[in-house]
Amino acid sequence: MSNIKTAQDVSSRLKIIPLGGLEQIGLNITAFEFEDSIIVVDCGLAFPTDDMLGIDLVIPDVTYLLDNVSKVKAFVITHGHEDHIGALPYILKVLNIPIYATRLTLGLIERKLEEHELLEVTERHEVGFGDTVSLGKFDVEFIKTNHSIVDAAALAIYSPVGTVVHTGDFKVDYTPLYGDAIDLQRFAEIGRDGVLALLCDSTNAERPGFTPSERTLGTAFDALFAEHKGRRIIVATFASNVDRVQQIIDTACRFDRKVVVEGRSMVNIIDTAANLGCLNIPDNTLIDIEEMRNYPDDKMVIITTGSQGESMAALSRMADGNHRKVKITANDTIIFSSHPIPGNEKAVTNVINELLQLGAEVIFQDVHVSGHACQEEIKLIYTLVQPKYSVPVHGEYKHLKAQASIAAELGIPKENIFILSTGDVFCLGPDDAEIRGKVPTGAIMVDGLGVGDVGNVVLRDRQRLAKDGILIVVVTLDQYNKEVLAGPEIVSRGFVYVKESDELMNGAWEVANETLEGCISRGQTDWNRIKTIIRDNLGDYIWKQTKRKPMILPIIQEI
Amino acid sequence: MSNIKTAQDVSSRLKIIPLGGLEQIGLNITAFEFEDSIIVVDCGLAFPTDDMLGIDLVIPDVTYLLDNVSKVKAFVITHGHEDHIGALPYILKVLNIPIYATRLTLGLIERKLEEHELLEVTERHEVGFGDTVSLGKFDVEFIKTNHSIVDAAALAIYSPVGTVVHTGDFKVDYTPLYGDAIDLQRFAEIGRDGVLALLCDSTNAERPGFTPSERTLGTAFDALFAEHKGRRIIVATFASNVDRVQQIIDTACRFDRKVVVEGRSMVNIIDTAANLGCLNIPDNTLIDIEEMRNYPDDKMVIITTGSQGESMAALSRMADGNHRKVKITANDTIIFSSHPIPGNEKAVTNVINELLQLGAEVIFQDVHVSGHACQEEIKLIYTLVQPKYSVPVHGEYKHLKAQASIAAELGIPKENIFILSTGDVFCLGPDDAEIRGKVPTGAIMVDGLGVGDVGNVVLRDRQRLAKDGILIVVVTLDQYNKEVLAGPEIVSRGFVYVKESDELMNGAWEVANETLEGCISRGQTDWNRIKTIIRDNLGDYIWKQTKRKPMILPIIQEI
Repeated sequence: MSNIKTAQDVSSRLKIIPLGGLEQIGLNITAFEFEDSIIVVDCGLAFPTDDMLGIDLVIPDVTYLLDNVSKVKAFVITHGHEDHIGALPYILKVLNIPIYATRLTLGLIERKLEEHELLEVTERHEVGFGDTVSLGKFDVEFIKTNHSIVDAAALAIYSPVGTVVHTGDFKVDYTPLYGDAIDLQRFAEIGRDGVLALLCDSTNAERPGFTPSERTLGTAFDALFAEHKGRRIIVATFASNVDRVQQIIDTACRFDRKVVVEGRSMVNIIDTAANLGCLNIPDNTLIDIEEMRNYPDDKMVIITTGSQGESMAALSRMADGNHRKVKITANDTIIFSSHPIPGNEKAVTNVINELLQLGAEVIFQDVHVSGHACQEEIKLIYTLVQPKYSVPVHGEYKHLKAQASIAAELGIPKENIFILSTGDVFCLGPDDAEIRGKVPTGAIMVDGLGVGDVGNVVLRDRQRLAKDGILIVVVTLDQYNKEVLAGPEIVSRGFVYVKESDELMNGAWEVANETLEGCISRGQTDWNRIKTIIRDNLGDYIWKQTKRKPMILPIIQEI
Repeated sequence: MSNIKTAQDVSSRLKIIPLGGLEQIGLNITAFEFEDSIIVVDCGLAFPTDDMLGIDLVIPDVTYLLDNVSKVKAFVITHGHEDHIGALPYILKVLNIPIYATRLTLGLIERKLEEHELLEVTERHEVGFGDTVSLGKFDVEFIKTNHSIVDAAALAIYSPVGTVVHTGDFKVDYTPLYGDAIDLQRFAEIGRDGVLALLCDSTNAERPGFTPSERTLGTAFDALFAEHKGRRIIVATFASNVDRVQQIIDTACRFDRKVVVEGRSMVNIIDTAANLGCLNIPDNTLIDIEEMRNYPDDKMVIITTGSQGESMAALSRMADGNHRKVKITANDTIIFSSHPIPGNEKAVTNVINELLQLGAEVIFQDVHVSGHACQEEIKLIYTLVQPKYSVPVHGEYKHLKAQASIAAELGIPKENIFILSTGDVFCLGPDDAEIRGKVPTGAIMVDGLGVGDVGNVVLRDRQRLAKDGILIVVVTLDQYNKEVLAGPEIVSRGFVYVKESDELMNGAWEVANETLEGCISRGQTDWNRIKTIIRDNLGDYIWKQTKRKPMILPIIQEI
């Protein structure tokens, strides 16, 4: 196989281009391109990293899709989690193409579109499991899988050069709570017919064994409810984990307790799922939070958001005593039915400590199962699908590496395993595969209503302001006579508590004033030059006195 | 026992007052007071929490000690970790009292005092295990324990009302690498003679079983070195874990490798420990980092700081390609001999991913043992010491609660178990115990050279600046004619990228200008009032346009 390709070669190749995810976990969006057709799998958002100060969320840069807008046929969505659907309302505003998804996934998307007033203008298609949709040069089949949300799908993407299987986020649950087990037979059939490449979920690729069935938690909840008779029970879990919510409701009914749902995202998702029949809630089970006072503690369960310690979520507000409707007492048992997502450990622990200090009992171990496949499940899918090429997806680099090791162990030649970076153009022919070039990608930061108006310059300023604050030096100059009319005045914010730092601030004023007078007496008339000298001298002085580097911002007004 | 006490009663009581720790894990400092005598156990620092923007470290507020300075006899230090000795240089500047500590602990303290030019002026006493020092009404005996640093001590504090045992941070290691096992016989003897209260380390109180011996890791290192023959080996661990460093050096010698020590704190501690004979380094084992080029990869081990993903530590600089002397290659094996401290998980994972992306192999599981006692060890100490009162210390609230459960399980009546909060005055008589009042305490923030000059106002400003930046509105007014001479000029930092937000910034100017003109035309002459109106109007405009709340800072200069 030659490494040199002609343009002809590439145009007849299937291109797989991750446009957001992989390095930046969460931003799941992948373009599949063949000749005049592009389909886009998923369109997720990510939450900001610690250095993205003030940013609310992050969405992918879809410049590549906009540059090829005539080719783009549709979004094909695997499941309804934020990291797979969350950016849709933002992207649809600039790229309004049809959406294909299964029932609950589409229900959750439609709720978002409604909020963003996009429902009317967006073409939407509900797809059933086993259905195949034709999108330009592609046919896409939706295959039933299991995950921590109902109606998750894998995709078989049929292209002129071969079939690609994309697992989406999945686990193998032989005894799921709602609906069928993952359609392993269909994976096997497609595998037997020949699969060019497998894009498989890597989240748990470091973990040996099998992820337990969601159903195993039913017994756990029953045991906990039996043990905590006489107490109010509060369960925190992911809003989107519809099956988990179903189990809590089932156990609540068995123990004759009413259920209150608390937290905006929890209410939204339960509402959507119940309307679509994905959640079975017996009559007279759900009550409004206002009705809670009519029931004793031992007749109540509260299902709430905040299992990740999110500071504004309902559980955090209960823990710090700021929840208007729920006061935690020593008669509460709080069950965390979740594991902390990496990075949230400290926040979760803080909430647990606060709840304990209020006298509540807190249970935070062994009341959760993952929604992602462990090593044995990954091996099972590879063995059914028998792909020629392996492309680990969905995870940090270490997770992708771990899946690459599994693939190698299963006999896939190392040169057929590809770990892609964002923007890589992965070109596939019937008998060849290589990464060939890169398209522009990036993370666009959303802050309030602003999409993309906070860039690296603004972020760097925020980081500097956060660390040491700002000193503003204001002076009014006479532009004709070159003399100081007012100031210099120094105002600081986030630097020191000024009232207790008289000496320092007086010293700073002296430095600013001497610098200014020196400039003027030397006939310096370039205001920018004067600003630079003030910034340097004052910065030196402050550093020597405090070992801090606040932002120094001279402002000169001329009259 | 009556709940009403006379002044006489309290003065004849032993008071135990946590002055920093417990809620704010890390700030370990506890006062023991009886009549005219106070001794202070440990004097630690803490690292800032996420909301303490720009803060370098946190030290305890010792107002209570300063208010009772004539009583304070000495610092008695259990071991040489930062969270037990780190605040000493800061506190000694305002409270210069003698220090009592074991050899390595004192060696590490002296290094700090030297840096802060306090060595000459501070009275220091090296104490051997089994030694008892008399400090006013107290006798304090140092008892050998095991921990993740050499020379850790528990304290038996003998007071006129009875004996208190303070474990310090400890584990039970029957086969320690250096020195003796914990002196269980002495704990037993003291226990048999009668112990009023036990203050016991709670860090691992949630974990069942026994913490493994440090020595178990020797085999682990040997196996890893054997497996990674031919490669360069880099081991990241805590600088202060002298035993761990000893084992890495031992294994390096067995495998005929030279050792480079990298990272300032690592170099300092190894230097101190080696000088005091607490570390046994064969000749010609350590080489300078500059000599590294003379040795092939398979003859090298680098021991480095950065096992917690600290952004400025040596390993992080290697991982992001910014280390001047060490370039990571595919021939490197990096071993993390540590667990992430809660809150550092994400940072550690980021470093691991960066190292993997450079092609290195990374080992981050099962090459660490804790330095703290698990449940069975805690039970052992309680059973030897047989305290009347239990006071769980050192840990988050959930850890203290877990130890309280263990104490109850061992038969200590619930009313004899006390979880103290910072500042609580825990009063002990021979037959009674209660929390009686509170003394002022607090966390003092250190930022650069400033100790305590960053308070809550400054922090709140930094948080606001970090989130949405700042808009500064500058205007020069004629104080006689009440007219605008220059401006308003709007300068923003950390808000939006101005060049791409023309419309928004023009709008902001219009609002500021109209507001200003309105004020002047209405004859408003109170500059503060004008500033408030500008702040309100501009804030409203910005919020409507962007859903952000930058700090708005109007500055008026008068001529």
